[in-house]
Amino acid sequence: MKITVIGGGSSYTPELLEGIIEQQELLGVSEIWLVDVPEGQEKLSIMEKLARRMIKKADLPIKLTATLDRRAAIKDASYVITQIRVGQLEMRRNDEYISLKHGVIGQETTGAGGFMKALRTIPVLLDICQDIEELAPDAWLLNFTNPAGLVTEAILKHSDVKVVGLCNNPINYYKKFSHTYNVDMEDISLTFVGINHLIWITELYVKGKSRIEDILTGVSDSYEARNIPSFGWDLDFLQSLQAIPCGYHKYYYQTDRLLEQQLEQYHNHETRADQVRKVEKELFELYQDPSLDKKPQALEQRGGAYYSEAAVRLMTSLHTNSKRIHTLNVRNNGTISCLPKDACIEVNCVVESHRVTPLQVGYVPPQIRGLLQVVKAYEELTVDAAVTGDKGLALQALTLHPLVPSSEKAKTVLEEMLEVNQPYLPQFYQDKQGVNR
Amino acid sequence: MKITVIGGGSSYTPELLEGIIEQQELLGVSEIWLVDVPEGQEKLSIMEKLARRMIKKADLPIKLTATLDRRAAIKDASYVITQIRVGQLEMRRNDEYISLKHGVIGQETTGAGGFMKALRTIPVLLDICQDIEELAPDAWLLNFTNPAGLVTEAILKHSDVKVVGLCNNPINYYKKFSHTYNVDMEDISLTFVGINHLIWITELYVKGKSRIEDILTGVSDSYEARNIPSFGWDLDFLQSLQAIPCGYHKYYYQTDRLLEQQLEQYHNHETRADQVRKVEKELFELYQDPSLDKKPQALEQRGGAYYSEAAVRLMTSLHTNSKRIHTLNVRNNGTISCLPKDACIEVNCVVESHRVTPLQVGYVPPQIRGLLQVVKAYEELTVDAAVTGDKGLALQALTLHPLVPSSEKAKTVLEEMLEVNQPYLPQFYQDKQGVNR
Amino acid sequence: MKITVIGGGSSYTPELLEGIIEQQELLGVSEIWLVDVPEGQEKLSIMEKLARRMIKKADLPIKLTATLDRRAAIKDASYVITQIRVGQLEMRRNDEYISLKHGVIGQETTGAGGFMKALRTIPVLLDICQDIEELAPDAWLLNFTNPAGLVTEAILKHSDVKVVGLCNNPINYYKKFSHTYNVDMEDISLTFVGINHLIWITELYVKGKSRIEDILTGVSDSYEARNIPSFGWDLDFLQSLQAIPCGYHKYYYQTDRLLEQQLEQYHNHETRADQVRKVEKELFELYQDPSLDKKPQALEQRGGAYYSEAAVRLMTSLHTNSKRIHTLNVRNNGTISCLPKDACIEVNCVVESHRVTPLQVGYVPPQIRGLLQVVKAYEELTVDAAVTGDKGLALQALTLHPLVPSSEKAKTVLEEMLEVNQPYLPQFYQDKQGVNR
Amino acid sequence: MKITVIGGGSSYTPELLEGIIEQQELLGVSEIWLVDVPEGQEKLSIMEKLARRMIKKADLPIKLTATLDRRAAIKDASYVITQIRVGQLEMRRNDEYISLKHGVIGQETTGAGGFMKALRTIPVLLDICQDIEELAPDAWLLNFTNPAGLVTEAILKHSDVKVVGLCNNPINYYKKFSHTYNVDMEDISLTFVGINHLIWITELYVKGKSRIEDILTGVSDSYEARNIPSFGWDLDFLQSLQAIPCGYHKYYYQTDRLLEQQLEQYHNHETRADQVRKVEKELFELYQDPSLDKKPQALEQRGGAYYSEAAVRLMTSLHTNSKRIHTLNVRNNGTISCLPKDACIEVNCVVESHRVTPLQVGYVPPQIRGLLQVVKAYEELTVDAAVTGDKGLALQALTLHPLVPSSEKAKTVLEEMLEVNQPYLPQFYQDKQGVNR
Repeated sequence: MKITVIGGGSSYTPELLEGIIEQQELLGVSEIWLVDVPEGQEKLSIMEKLARRMIKKADLPIKLTATLDRRAAIKDASYVITQIRVGQLEMRRNDEYISLKHGVIGQETTGAGGFMKALRTIPVLLDICQDIEELAPDAWLLNFTNPAGLVTEAILKHSDVKVVGLCNNPINYYKKFSHTYNVDMEDISLTFVGINHLIWITELYVKGKSRIEDILTGVSDSYEARNIPSFGWDLDFLQSLQAIPCGYHKYYYQTDRLLEQQLEQYHNHETRADQVRKVEKELFELYQDPSLDKKPQALEQRGGAYYSEAAVRLMTSLHTNSKRIHTLNVRNNGTISCLPKDACIEVNCVVESHRVTPLQVGYVPPQIRGLLQVVKAYEELTVDAAVTGDKGLALQALTLHPLVPSSEKAKTVLEEMLEVNQPYLPQFYQDKQGVNR
Repeated sequence: MKITVIGGGSSYTPELLEGIIEQQELLGVSEIWLVDVPEGQEKLSIMEKLARRMIKKADLPIKLTATLDRRAAIKDASYVITQIRVGQLEMRRNDEYISLKHGVIGQETTGAGGFMKALRTIPVLLDICQDIEELAPDAWLLNFTNPAGLVTEAILKHSDVKVVGLCNNPINYYKKFSHTYNVDMEDISLTFVGINHLIWITELYVKGKSRIEDILTGVSDSYEARNIPSFGWDLDFLQSLQAIPCGYHKYYYQTDRLLEQQLEQYHNHETRADQVRKVEKELFELYQDPSLDKKPQALEQRGGAYYSEAAVRLMTSLHTNSKRIHTLNVRNNGTISCLPKDACIEVNCVVESHRVTPLQVGYVPPQIRGLLQVVKAYEELTVDAAVTGDKGLALQALTLHPLVPSSEKAKTVLEEMLEVNQPYLPQFYQDKQGVNR
Repeated sequence: MKITVIGGGSSYTPELLEGIIEQQELLGVSEIWLVDVPEGQEKLSIMEKLARRMIKKADLPIKLTATLDRRAAIKDASYVITQIRVGQLEMRRNDEYISLKHGVIGQETTGAGGFMKALRTIPVLLDICQDIEELAPDAWLLNFTNPAGLVTEAILKHSDVKVVGLCNNPINYYKKFSHTYNVDMEDISLTFVGINHLIWITELYVKGKSRIEDILTGVSDSYEARNIPSFGWDLDFLQSLQAIPCGYHKYYYQTDRLLEQQLEQYHNHETRADQVRKVEKELFELYQDPSLDKKPQALEQRGGAYYSEAAVRLMTSLHTNSKRIHTLNVRNNGTISCLPKDACIEVNCVVESHRVTPLQVGYVPPQIRGLLQVVKAYEELTVDAAVTGDKGLALQALTLHPLVPSSEKAKTVLEEMLEVNQPYLPQFYQDKQGVNR
Repeated sequence: MKITVIGGGSSYTPELLEGIIEQQELLGVSEIWLVDVPEGQEKLSIMEKLARRMIKKADLPIKLTATLDRRAAIKDASYVITQIRVGQLEMRRNDEYISLKHGVIGQETTGAGGFMKALRTIPVLLDICQDIEELAPDAWLLNFTNPAGLVTEAILKHSDVKVVGLCNNPINYYKKFSHTYNVDMEDISLTFVGINHLIWITELYVKGKSRIEDILTGVSDSYEARNIPSFGWDLDFLQSLQAIPCGYHKYYYQTDRLLEQQLEQYHNHETRADQVRKVEKELFELYQDPSLDKKPQALEQRGGAYYSEAAVRLMTSLHTNSKRIHTLNVRNNGTISCLPKDACIEVNCVVESHRVTPLQVGYVPPQIRGLLQVVKAYEELTVDAAVTGDKGLALQALTLHPLVPSSEKAKTVLEEMLEVNQPYLPQFYQDKQGVNR
């Protein structure tokens, strides 16, 4: 039982380790491999030492390896977890700044920002998948890498790896509502409809009783993610939507306000990338403390709450053939009948050790369907553009995105982004033989 | 917690009672009502006494009522179980004899026999559903009444009752394979595709490993139902089918042989109805034995093995909000994308206390799809005919059925059956005001 | 052969009359009825006189009647043409001004403006349809009334009238390309995909040769409608779109520029409604000239070029059972498989006297599909809101529209519009019995 | 303008020539090439001489070439017509005799007979298509070769040739009803739903008035094909079907009777193949008459009435870009929404010179849908079996066919047929390198 963490130098790794350590009885892990790229060597080294301290403290017979050799790390893995950031925070910052310079929302996973991140990231993930197909064909790939929906769709379409895309969004709702209603998470039953970071809750049952009207009529937005600004929801809007939107819906339903706020941050040089850079710096300083042998509290400020819990619970369900329900990014196959069969969707799934099967989603009302379809069509184009390096497809993708106000803006932003990202976009700049175009 | 058994005088009732008694700790039943029609009064009375002996032996505080007052029985029930036979065995015998007289397979749930049973039974079940809507709107209806798929489709289309159709077929496969592989039923994972009594197993996993090739390449037919004759399967056929057919598939894949055998039974006056009549007679003699206070062994000869286990497991899952997987008859909603959305299908479902959600079924290969579609179209016509009393729809339904060799045969059989069944088919003989046409 | 023109006082009527007069040999019209509402009596009277002069000049035995009695006008009609404007230009002006006041594009058929026009217009058209069902059940209804797609969808969903929705957009492309390539219109073959005012040309054949690349690579926007401002198309955009957008696409693909221009017009009190008001005034002065006995040249400035040609050609095709191809608004029925079956779409159709059958549209690429689906979902909600008077549905519709930047803006604009339009929106202000809510 | 007839030695050729000669003014043919296989050389030679006499009589400047060089014949053709019979009548006779020997209907295009013909024919047609792709990429292929639906589906799925499948069935209905109602064929409007040789007429309009009830309530079967035995239709059946079945439907709706009759013919050695052999012999004797310079009357006995009229009308429509409606075998693409998108269907199409576009077919009622779906699934499997040589797929195809009573019969018939047809089935007996398996 070998777990491989690609992007092992990520600041999230301590949380993941903590989770694995807690579930070791069920998981029976024998090896953990942390692997990273040369640019991440320093962070990886810090993480390795912290990990050793954590494992030692738990007194477990887990062999830890940190390496830059990805193929060695993947070989014979049971589970591969990807949590990488191609181009590091520098490129994320570019995504935000170029978007906002032209008056377009710049966000890590949505809109022009998420689009550029997808173009950079998808080829790297497909490359990893080739290694997995060759070196660990039975492994499950748990993809955390954002934009998780786009990346998972690319893998589902262009690889044979057993992949599941994972987000901390759904588990946060279970946590939130179990807190609200003071019951166990097991007593909460949610129906999710949508795709990663665009997911509606259409049913909420607490111990078998429908309670969604509670939320639609009274609660403002206490169920929000930490990394998304919050202005609350209008109750007339919520009630007529007849569903609970997720935090990322604000980019669509409150576009004007979000843009205004982002522009202010941009002018103050305090966009989300700037903030994260600061947080990360502080975290890695903490991580270096030789007395630290557990996940520090400060990590919870980072934004990805319960990421590791979602991942470790899933790994445990897979490993124990639990038949439990998780909310995951998987191939549609007709589950949401208004989306293409080969699209990646985020819905409730039954997890067995050999497969992950979505639960049928019934009728999707037009107010959800319309937004879902246009964003999914954008995603389809983006995946195609990322794989082929076709600039025309990229232009159409960006133009179609609801957060981009015109084809002209799309073209301007696209060209600037392509230029800055050139080192990460060989598919746009080289032919198949690797020769520059 | 009140359980109502409609058709309480059925010979299956002792098995059902045994199951409820065993699960009483989880179910917490306070009342059981057995209800039947006047023609079944004698059987009901025998059953009532046996039931009292069984409850007494178990020393449980369950109040038992036996009655002919259906509305009183339904009022405030938590679960209603229907296991009725409209027209009793006499009419089943007619179904078989009229079919075979014209050289057409006569079977209780499939072909001309199942067709006529549906015409008789659907109006009665819809009537029961009206009572449930009025008197126990929150009750779950567990429909066992055959042809269970057709009856459940009629209810799904023409009533608002929370209904689930149930068959012992799927649980028998779990039992069978847990025996074959010597593992717990929980370790067996099966994918079912199809409709009631026409269900293919397309995947068999044992502890997470695919084992379906074992069955497709080596086993003949030891996994058969007791009430269906068995000639084994040709292995070339099984391997190219790439799925395990169910027992009832023999009527379709071995039509010529099955017909030959049925004709022989017909000429000897030993059709299945004749056999069941004999078995039932013996069972009720046993049931009258005042020293009997448990389900007699002999019941297991009856053909509906594990019926009650399936029902009681489902009730327990509903009652405890278990999120366990059961194979049930539910509304399609796109789960099997080659069938109409409002069709009733039999597939794996997650059971919660407030809903039953099918798991997505992926690609259905043409060898399965074609037969499934034609039989489902027959079912759609049959439900329409049963509800409207439209003789033309009935003729089209029967003509379309793969076991009926021509429209001429269909017409002859239909007319004879309609005449014999006249007392049970007011929809064909009266207008909406109840006046004879 | 009786033709009834509802909204007979419209400034477009002379063009329509000219067309009918030209095709009289094929049409054999015996009666033309012009009908209007009391508010339009003066215009109707002017039109009646002009019409009499035109018929007289053509020396045709057509009986003309002008009336305010709609039921008399509809009775026994062969063709009913609707070209009404509920609330007259005053309300159109309000649509534009309220939208722009809140920084939202205000346009007659698209966005918030078209939305409010639909809410006012649909109930009136459904009322007309009730009259047609009763008084002229065999009549064809040719609906010109904007927003033609929304209105036709409402009729298709809520009436049994034989309706076809009509727009001058498609015929303009035939005219344009026959001019460009100097061939007859018959030699031009176009494939249209989309819905009214959101229609893409995906194929252009001239005498059997594909010529669409000519347009995608070289032509700017000479194929534009007169009433939509034009900034040209970027050729990279066109080529990657792989389709020719229509004029109204600019509101979606060039939202920022169009909004900027509209805001300027708004501040100068020169929006489109203001312009049309001026043009109409001039036209009716011309129409009153007792020496005028034909359609004046000036009408061609009005914006609806070839409207009447489209209508009269269609009437002639219907009347002569021509089996010719027209581009029309009809029920989808699977023609565009990514849209709901009961949606109204605008595609090529074969016209027979008894039916209008769409030609199958093949694959729709994601760049078209995504925008089409979101706008169609908006339309579905708008039709539902217009029919039910449900304010929540109206809010969801407007929020979903790509030209509306947030649910907050949608709510503000909606409430202001509902208030101003109160006299025209009984469905929002009264219950079914007509009592104010 | 070069027309190539593959299978030029066929007895149907004179009719085709007659049709081309009649339409020469519109078609402007410069060359006709007749090509055949060595086994058909004698017939080809007879046909060549007759053709020369016919062209001479018409005094047209058409160059005629008869050859065994298929590639030369195809090169630069405008239209390629295929009317071949792989294995000649001998193999057709085997198809019938092997089927009937085992009590299974043996028919040229349907059931086991049509199945085996498809396995022999599809590889040859795909080979021809490779030549067309290379030597005449702009040519239209008009496929007459039976089973026309299966063969055309194989070409649509496995080749890029512009193909249309053609049958004389539809035109016969136009002829028939124009005769019945004494109107021009142009005044008849029919809606066809289905696939080749399994096609229902769901609407019949005569000069814009619906007349289908005439047929459903009164006419027996005067609209039948000459080569299919006729027992009439039961009127109760027709009226509840709500559609006019085609002649081949008798194999499905009157299976028992048709089988009985075929068995009698089989025992008398007078099956259809025997009959055709006799007719063909007589025809070729006639054709050799040096004074014959036109199509002989006797050809009309042959069974393919109006075959050539259908073909020549289609060629003319293509050539003149007529936009007329023909009933053709084309890719489904959603036209019949209950069938796979890539299936071949037979429906009304608009014919332009560059494309053939199906008209949307609306709701298909279950009595039609069920039979259509099961036969189409059989066809899908048959095409796959023919292309891959997979015996398992062949077994599943034949088992699924409604005219085959069991998998056991399917296996017996299949094995016998495969053996007899070995010389024509390299795909089943050789690997891809042509080495015997």
